[in-house]
Amino acid sequence: MAANRFIIWGSGSGPAWRVLIALEEKQLEYESRLIEFSKGEHKSTEVLALNPRGQVPVLKDGDVVVNESLAAVQYLEHTYSNNPLVPKDAKSRALVLQRFHEASNFIAKATQVGYPKMRNLVNTPEEEAAWLEKVEELKAELKFWESYVAGGFVAGSEFSIADISLAPFLLSVERYGGELKDFPNLKKYAETLKARPSIAKTFPPHWKTSPNQTWLAGLI
Amino acid sequence: MAANRFIIWGSGSGPAWRVLIALEEKQLEYESRLIEFSKGEHKSTEVLALNPRGQVPVLKDGDVVVNESLAAVQYLEHTYSNNPLVPKDAKSRALVLQRFHEASNFIAKATQVGYPKMRNLVNTPEEEAAWLEKVEELKAELKFWESYVAGGFVAGSEFSIADISLAPFLLSVERYGGELKDFPNLKKYAETLKARPSIAKTFPPHWKTSPNQTWLAGLI
Repeated sequence: MAANRFIIWGSGSGPAWRVLIALEEKQLEYESRLIEFSKGEHKSTEVLALNPRGQVPVLKDGDVVVNESLAAVQYLEHTYSNNPLVPKDAKSRALVLQRFHEASNFIAKATQVGYPKMRNLVNTPEEEAAWLEKVEELKAELKFWESYVAGGFVAGSEFSIADISLAPFLLSVERYGGELKDFPNLKKYAETLKARPSIAKTFPPHWKTSPNQTWLAGLI
Repeated sequence: MAANRFIIWGSGSGPAWRVLIALEEKQLEYESRLIEFSKGEHKSTEVLALNPRGQVPVLKDGDVVVNESLAAVQYLEHTYSNNPLVPKDAKSRALVLQRFHEASNFIAKATQVGYPKMRNLVNTPEEEAAWLEKVEELKAELKFWESYVAGGFVAGSEFSIADISLAPFLLSVERYGGELKDFPNLKKYAETLKARPSIAKTFPPHWKTSPNQTWLAGLI
């Protein structure tokens, strides 16, 4: 039986996945409540009572509720000292914080590419041209991270909260059909991530049972 | 003479303003390097050497460089223990982290309203109608924060890093001509912010010397 702790999440939600990874990394027991977006379950009374925005993740830990994924990751890291995910050294710690927050740039670029395809908004030649510009922006973003992960992880040689911040969104690029051919460091890093128990165990269920998209095939 | 610490910033940049506020709150000495966006100084060799994205803020503290504003705020808070901006109690701390990150929602909604006006992209009736929808989204967002600040600050009765995260962007709504008429708590909170020494001292220079916009007059 799990502790007095649960997470409400949806399959494929990058923010929710972050919190699942953090719970696994910290080896905390938790009740997993998987909801279905297609049934509107993120707007249920239960979710709205805990998160008035009607979004997941919702993390409840005792009497503490945290809904913002990065807040939940930092909350878990600060509250539970086992398996530290932030280095103690000030300079290393600063780099982890930098990358932890900098991932928001990556998310913005990946979302610009994924969202219009998911919503079937790329149909006319003009829409296709505009979408290809977004793909170029994502490639420019990937270049930053290609250099960052040269040391093995996003902020050096150790797995940290910075990797948790980025991982779901880097793996979403693969989900969209990206092969990362021009990004050998990121390709290797993505394999490292997928082999990590915390990530393998929490991999989005519907990504495992359905083929990847082909949107980015031959492009990234 | 300032310590071996400087910040590169631009007038009106919300992210840069956050870091200035944090430096003041922590009563740290620093060298202030104000650049001009209109002259492209954020793409200068000096900035690019410290931040390959060519963005401000850039915070350099000894041999530590942090460019993401929220990372810089958390770095300063963690590194310098004077004038704490995060409570020690786990539950209060969780709420501060929640609001600190949740401000990203506010920024997205405020930017959707400010950016097209700043770039003169709202001209046709269709553009005007689309813009007014964004104004409605901003109003919906303001409602969340109107309830949050009922206790005086964003996460209770004490000023925290959560206030630093939100403040520049709430004040930008006033800069756009918003009077916050339907948001009495936020109106009062904005006055509290502007009277706070760390914020008064770092108020964007060009906001002090030029009249506010009138974009949101009568709307918010």
